[in-house]
Amino acid sequence: MKLSKMLISTLREVPAEAEIVSHQLMLRAGMIRKVSSGVYNYMPFGIKVIKKIEKIVRSEMEVADAQEFLASALLTSELLIESGRWNIFGPEVFRLKDRNEREFCLAPTHEETFTDIARNEIKSYKQLPLNLYQIQTKYRDEKTTRLGVMTSREFTMGEACSFDASNEGLDISYNKMYNAYTNIFKRCSLKCKDVEADCGAMGDLSSLEFMVKSEVGEEEVVTCSSCGYAVNMEKATSTSEPMKKEEFKELNKILTPGIKTIEDLEKFFNTTNKKFAKTLIFKADDRVIAVMVRGDRQLNENKVINAIGGAKKFELADEGVVMASTSAIVGFAGPIGIVADLLLVDSEVANMYNYIVGANDTGYHYENVNYGRDFKGLVGDYKKVVEGDKCSKCESQITIDRGIELAHIFKLGTVYSQSMGATFIGQDGKNNPLVMGRYGIGINRTMAAIIEQHHDENGIKWPMSVAPYQVVVVPVSIKDEEQMKIAEEIYNKLKGIGVEVLMDDRNERVGVKFKDLDLIGIPIRITIGKKISEGNVEFKLRYAGDNEIIEIDSVMDRVKQEFVNNNITL
Amino acid sequence: MKLSKMLISTLREVPAEAEIVSHQLMLRAGMIRKVSSGVYNYMPFGIKVIKKIEKIVRSEMEVADAQEFLASALLTSELLIESGRWNIFGPEVFRLKDRNEREFCLAPTHEETFTDIARNEIKSYKQLPLNLYQIQTKYRDEKTTRLGVMTSREFTMGEACSFDASNEGLDISYNKMYNAYTNIFKRCSLKCKDVEADCGAMGDLSSLEFMVKSEVGEEEVVTCSSCGYAVNMEKATSTSEPMKKEEFKELNKILTPGIKTIEDLEKFFNTTNKKFAKTLIFKADDRVIAVMVRGDRQLNENKVINAIGGAKKFELADEGVVMASTSAIVGFAGPIGIVADLLLVDSEVANMYNYIVGANDTGYHYENVNYGRDFKGLVGDYKKVVEGDKCSKCESQITIDRGIELAHIFKLGTVYSQSMGATFIGQDGKNNPLVMGRYGIGINRTMAAIIEQHHDENGIKWPMSVAPYQVVVVPVSIKDEEQMKIAEEIYNKLKGIGVEVLMDDRNERVGVKFKDLDLIGIPIRITIGKKISEGNVEFKLRYAGDNEIIEIDSVMDRVKQEFVNNNITL
Repeated sequence: MKLSKMLISTLREVPAEAEIVSHQLMLRAGMIRKVSSGVYNYMPFGIKVIKKIEKIVRSEMEVADAQEFLASALLTSELLIESGRWNIFGPEVFRLKDRNEREFCLAPTHEETFTDIARNEIKSYKQLPLNLYQIQTKYRDEKTTRLGVMTSREFTMGEACSFDASNEGLDISYNKMYNAYTNIFKRCSLKCKDVEADCGAMGDLSSLEFMVKSEVGEEEVVTCSSCGYAVNMEKATSTSEPMKKEEFKELNKILTPGIKTIEDLEKFFNTTNKKFAKTLIFKADDRVIAVMVRGDRQLNENKVINAIGGAKKFELADEGVVMASTSAIVGFAGPIGIVADLLLVDSEVANMYNYIVGANDTGYHYENVNYGRDFKGLVGDYKKVVEGDKCSKCESQITIDRGIELAHIFKLGTVYSQSMGATFIGQDGKNNPLVMGRYGIGINRTMAAIIEQHHDENGIKWPMSVAPYQVVVVPVSIKDEEQMKIAEEIYNKLKGIGVEVLMDDRNERVGVKFKDLDLIGIPIRITIGKKISEGNVEFKLRYAGDNEIIEIDSVMDRVKQEFVNNNITL
Repeated sequence: MKLSKMLISTLREVPAEAEIVSHQLMLRAGMIRKVSSGVYNYMPFGIKVIKKIEKIVRSEMEVADAQEFLASALLTSELLIESGRWNIFGPEVFRLKDRNEREFCLAPTHEETFTDIARNEIKSYKQLPLNLYQIQTKYRDEKTTRLGVMTSREFTMGEACSFDASNEGLDISYNKMYNAYTNIFKRCSLKCKDVEADCGAMGDLSSLEFMVKSEVGEEEVVTCSSCGYAVNMEKATSTSEPMKKEEFKELNKILTPGIKTIEDLEKFFNTTNKKFAKTLIFKADDRVIAVMVRGDRQLNENKVINAIGGAKKFELADEGVVMASTSAIVGFAGPIGIVADLLLVDSEVANMYNYIVGANDTGYHYENVNYGRDFKGLVGDYKKVVEGDKCSKCESQITIDRGIELAHIFKLGTVYSQSMGATFIGQDGKNNPLVMGRYGIGINRTMAAIIEQHHDENGIKWPMSVAPYQVVVVPVSIKDEEQMKIAEEIYNKLKGIGVEVLMDDRNERVGVKFKDLDLIGIPIRITIGKKISEGNVEFKLRYAGDNEIIEIDSVMDRVKQEFVNNNITL
């Protein structure tokens, strides 16, 4: 297309509202424009990239034997009441009524729709396996929308559900989708990390997130620099420090007046916080749950919730509950004599010797406490991993990075199929619940992540695979007939072989053109200037940098070569 | 793709809820499934067709120099308050609030967004002309949703706006879009009629609808069987019958006790309703408007509203207003002495001689009334055209059909650009409002219309250009190794040259397969059966009907030929 006919909306200034580089560059290159907080219009160069990513997703879905369909963005309350989520969804879901006062929401996700289709259309094992996907607009009324399209309220999601007759079948479907997503990110030239994610209370099922590093990311990723194992903070474990065995000393109840914090205790006992164990008291729906971790540790709430079999509401207990459980004011909770539905003890605490805990008596602590002799509880891994902990796989040091989730694959199992009655008649003639896998990829996030990883101070450096256009032909002077003639010839030839090519025929100085084109990030720039008198033009790769002088006659071969180098078929 | 891996959801029965054949067949062929009244999920074969139509639209938009963008479906109330439509929109618009109580609606159309983008991004005549389009999901909470996807509450629309510096520029943009839409429907093998549509109060601007005939359609189309001129009922005119000149007779006021209807009057005066003129009284916002048409005629409200310069609210006056205007009860209104802000007189009435009207006096009529001598008013064309009227272009008889609008192109002019301040600096250095054109095409309606025009008693007969898949290979027995081998070979070869091909490898009787495939409507069916022993297979075109026996070796050429015949490039 000719740029003189196109809408170019580049900005020279960095917009104040944009915190991360992808947001800044999407605004500056005229890829998006804000409609409302977290809601964007995609401008011509922006939507081109979105469509390119969607095309890559579609082609990989086909390889994974997934079939496209398209669900309505309007979800009826009936379907969500049935799954139980209508009342669980909070203010992050947009709700609305139609003219007959029927309630709908704008789908934040479509599990119920997938399950509903499956229960209506799948009758027999003969129809399995089945994998359905859609590329569709989702709505989430996010509380904070600080990262441009990374956390927008309206976004395009590629999502899929696989339906299998057995867990073995699910493994195959899941692996196909893992490969598909891996290929998608590879084709988008994105460096992603596979991060193990939490499966909730569903124990041994697998869940994997595809993350990109980002200092402003919402997720914490725990990575071992040695073995490469990466896991979401929610699920992360680390190896406990080995403890030197000690003889059990005599349990002492000690008056610790006016002491409330761990720091006060450290001073009082003249020791480090690693010698204490703290006891935290929570309300999990109707239950009172006490959890012990070492004094220097924080709790991983997610692990606790999974350990107690899930909870709709989970929060620190108020003073009244603490008083009822410990017979003391806040600050003196401990395991000995505590009244709670469950006492969870982090394995690190269970392995310590002769430590200090609250005495469930205002103003008192116990010292020389030992698990087994003085109290018992449900021992498990409840602590939050910290930088410097040791990898649970190889015992090397772990690091913690922030990241943004681009995709998520998840062995759902039979949760939805059981609650919504999505069954099939098996080979044995019996009714069984469908075994489901669940897969989602954020299209707009993927676009932003590509920019995060492919840019310089002048703008975006699109990989060939997702560039809005692959080549731009720039005549230095549109008033020079010879330059224009050669530019037109090259433009038409490239167009003829299917290259997505622009011609910058705007009546602007070439410096202005270069600035715009570098900002927009077209991969290949062919400049037609004075060197045509020697039969030459300039050839520049946005992602490589150097300016080559090449013969006019070799332009086509040079462009084709670049397609081959990037594994893109013309 | 192999059908054994796909979701086939064909229904043998005609669903009771479906009134028109396209709705029936879309349900039966498993193209759509209902979510809620007027809201549908598009199943795998259905979304394939939608994507095909979208692809055709995109390619024609490119020819028309239109650039794709994508607007949010969430429209802020601010933008619509500015254009004045927030309060005009009625219950057909879905409204919602976000977590901060900000008001939005789900866009029923995007004029404001287009205009907003233009005023933000277009500064100078140098950027013109510009044409932006999008293919996007729209929402309208229709009162009745009886025709399947023809009147759905969520639908995909291709819509565009052109921006020009002048009316001459608009003419060029408009013609390009006319050609684009004409080509789209041609490529979809749709027989559409170009129907002149009403431009509202904006007088001489053009507006054209692309309509398909349908007995259940919501629009009336007036067509001349001779010259082919077609026009929407809202705008339709016809030639008045020539009147035999008469001498003016003396005006008589006659007691017509107990007479209220035209039928009563016909009896009383022993004549036809063509000898009367009726006077109807309306409230148009704050004005009282009286309109006269011949006794046998109905009024075209749209023409009246345009003639009085538009009205937000236009309805028949209540008894009180009638009494105030005519000093009589309802049934005796007439032009002589009427008190109204405007008296509109249909030209047919102005050309009649010695006719009967109400006397503005309860129980009385005038006879021998004549325009000019007895009263005056604003003469114009206010009558509704009826079957049998004469074409205003060629005086042949017109017919009236019902139709469904698939697309609409409209010279908007400067309505929105003026009200929203979308201006550009012209060559003269002055600020001018952008001259806009407006274009819309219903993607889902187009799909349904294709089915309406391409089906038989067995199912859909997709044209090659929009078929979900172009070819299906059917081995008669999947247990016959030789048949399967040849079927696989043909399937792979076709796939290799880019044909969208299915293989029906389901373990079903061939009769069942044929029934499904005829219902779904795949254009080319290649059946691999016992005739392979003679080196032959069956070749059948769904849209042509006959079964040919052809040699296995000629299959590829025969398929390619069919692509050529249908002007589809492989």
